[in-house]
Amino acid sequence: MEKHDNLYMKIQNKKWVLELIKKNAPISRADIAKRTNMSPTSISRIVNELETEGYVVETNHHSSGVGRKATFLNVSKDAIFTIGIDLTEQEIKIGIITFTDEVLAAKTIPNTYQTDSSMTLQAISIEVKQILKEHEIMIEKVIGIGIGMPGYIDFEKGIVTLSSQLGWRNVHVSQELEQLIGVRVLVDNDLRMKAMAEYLYGSAKSSSSSVLIGISSGVGSAIIMNGDYYRGQNNLSGEISHTVVDINGELCSCGKYGCLVSIVSEEAILRQARKVTNIKTLDEIQEAFKHGETWAINLLDRVTTYIAITVSNIFYLYNPAILVLSGKVLEKYDVIQTLVEEKYSKFIAEPYKTQSKLSYATMGENSIILGAAIQARSAFLEFN
Amino acid sequence: MEKHDNLYMKIQNKKWVLELIKKNAPISRADIAKRTNMSPTSISRIVNELETEGYVVETNHHSSGVGRKATFLNVSKDAIFTIGIDLTEQEIKIGIITFTDEVLAAKTIPNTYQTDSSMTLQAISIEVKQILKEHEIMIEKVIGIGIGMPGYIDFEKGIVTLSSQLGWRNVHVSQELEQLIGVRVLVDNDLRMKAMAEYLYGSAKSSSSSVLIGISSGVGSAIIMNGDYYRGQNNLSGEISHTVVDINGELCSCGKYGCLVSIVSEEAILRQARKVTNIKTLDEIQEAFKHGETWAINLLDRVTTYIAITVSNIFYLYNPAILVLSGKVLEKYDVIQTLVEEKYSKFIAEPYKTQSKLSYATMGENSIILGAAIQARSAFLEFN
Repeated sequence: MEKHDNLYMKIQNKKWVLELIKKNAPISRADIAKRTNMSPTSISRIVNELETEGYVVETNHHSSGVGRKATFLNVSKDAIFTIGIDLTEQEIKIGIITFTDEVLAAKTIPNTYQTDSSMTLQAISIEVKQILKEHEIMIEKVIGIGIGMPGYIDFEKGIVTLSSQLGWRNVHVSQELEQLIGVRVLVDNDLRMKAMAEYLYGSAKSSSSSVLIGISSGVGSAIIMNGDYYRGQNNLSGEISHTVVDINGELCSCGKYGCLVSIVSEEAILRQARKVTNIKTLDEIQEAFKHGETWAINLLDRVTTYIAITVSNIFYLYNPAILVLSGKVLEKYDVIQTLVEEKYSKFIAEPYKTQSKLSYATMGENSIILGAAIQARSAFLEFN
Repeated sequence: MEKHDNLYMKIQNKKWVLELIKKNAPISRADIAKRTNMSPTSISRIVNELETEGYVVETNHHSSGVGRKATFLNVSKDAIFTIGIDLTEQEIKIGIITFTDEVLAAKTIPNTYQTDSSMTLQAISIEVKQILKEHEIMIEKVIGIGIGMPGYIDFEKGIVTLSSQLGWRNVHVSQELEQLIGVRVLVDNDLRMKAMAEYLYGSAKSSSSSVLIGISSGVGSAIIMNGDYYRGQNNLSGEISHTVVDINGELCSCGKYGCLVSIVSEEAILRQARKVTNIKTLDEIQEAFKHGETWAINLLDRVTTYIAITVSNIFYLYNPAILVLSGKVLEKYDVIQTLVEEKYSKFIAEPYKTQSKLSYATMGENSIILGAAIQARSAFLEFN
């Protein structure tokens, strides 16, 4: 046990030092020793290993004031790369993410195969090889691929159990794509990855607990506590889509009456509006609302009431420090935002109201590829 | 850092060995060494310390078969004691819990002071001293007191922020009671303690994730993941009481329409029934249901529909392996149980339906005092 512990400690210390350099670069060896309470000898050994392996580079910097040159350390942004993929029923977005979490390149193609998982994964493999070639990155420098997509996903086995959006059932995504590309593949629910991007760099930055709600063509949520996902027993936590919020509501495609998704998803809102007038987009509904058209006022009143109830219920159940609203319905329409904020404060009580924060996603269109890549790197980066 | 680590490891190892003995007693030193992979010398040192401190005792046992006597170890059930308290607006239950989690004695007194927190805590202190005297236990043997009660509780500071049930606001429970009794005091939401008792010894035993729902005079839930509470940011997770489940429902005392508590609590059910006939108990409603009275059938239909929706929503949001139903409304009435089980299966989808389990609390009336005592011991038991 003790030998095992020592090896474990050694690897943990190495990861710790690398994270420290990443967050505080440029940083000196002495400063690392001070911050970690480790001996200068240990730090030298670890840093040397990290340099040899290409993760860390030396850089000359002028120390403050005196003008004396000193050796500082930085992480090498092209030490390794990770591929992040955002897979929806409409589009496939593929990005190359550097070791320092920058999106080096990204590309979006239409998802023409949809329910045919095998063809979709082949198309992905072709595009991944293509984008790496364009940017002259050897496949050996790619540590892994992360895919974010909607659905029930067994992320440990890399299997999509069910994605009703894509029409996939029991697809062995990791295994199939690993065979096509020769790189390890991780697949998980897209909202988890979005939540991770917001937690690391966006509106939930450094928050000890956050929940992200996504409302677009689908509806869902993801929880992050102390830097890690709250997944539940089968990676199925946060599935608010088919929670019944209005038992007197419409019949949902799942067979129940009044599921949240049957009221607030983009499609549900459009379906309601089309009972009155032949419109094509949410933009038109917002326009109609602003022109004072009764149907648009009533429709958005009802939609935002149920969104506000959902937001307050999430606060009551998970009690996060911050709740991040995301997805087209919540991010793009100021009328919806204003109504949700007004109504939400009627539904949420003290002490939640003053101790919790409501915010909007800030990471934009690259958040899923970024979160997916970071999650894959965290899963596949190994030291010895 | 290394010195700090060694001390930490030493204490952790000691706790580990003690837990191992507790769970597997009677157990030999050799067996402990084998199970922990620690050296016989280390085990001897730790066991000697635990014996000196009174936690562990030697016992002679015949080894299997050969009839040779060997020395085995057991924990001493009266090494230390903990007091568990279950505080409601009607009653105060006080119990002495042994080191081996047995309820040595318990006593219930009516809560006559209710909103007067100071008088209530004085009454508790008198009863605690009394019950210890009756059982000839010195106060020095009591490591701590755990109190479970309904409300919003800052368990880290020992302050009841708000308990609408008892009418308490910002009461420094731990500090006040510590001054009265001279023993450390922990206070937390009663459902958390009930959930812990079910997790350790009841229907959620050894489950990797469980949620307990309580419906009686109040409504709430508590989540346990990997043996620890999911508390949320301010210990306010699981507060399903004022989640809006029927926006067209009655006005709740909190000022919103259609909160869960305004439909399914004992008081809410009785209030509805009294619109039709002058009854006093839920037993009478169940009787009326069994006699086919229309009002009782409609009332319990509505109540159990919203309980079933809540149960399914909890599965969707927290995705626990097991959900434990508890509290008078859910534990005492077979009509309500049958209806909830029937309806719940209409609201919950695959894969939750097959991968999750619905059950009932089995720990009975002592569950809160037991859970409270265990939580207090875990917080206050220190080694050096």
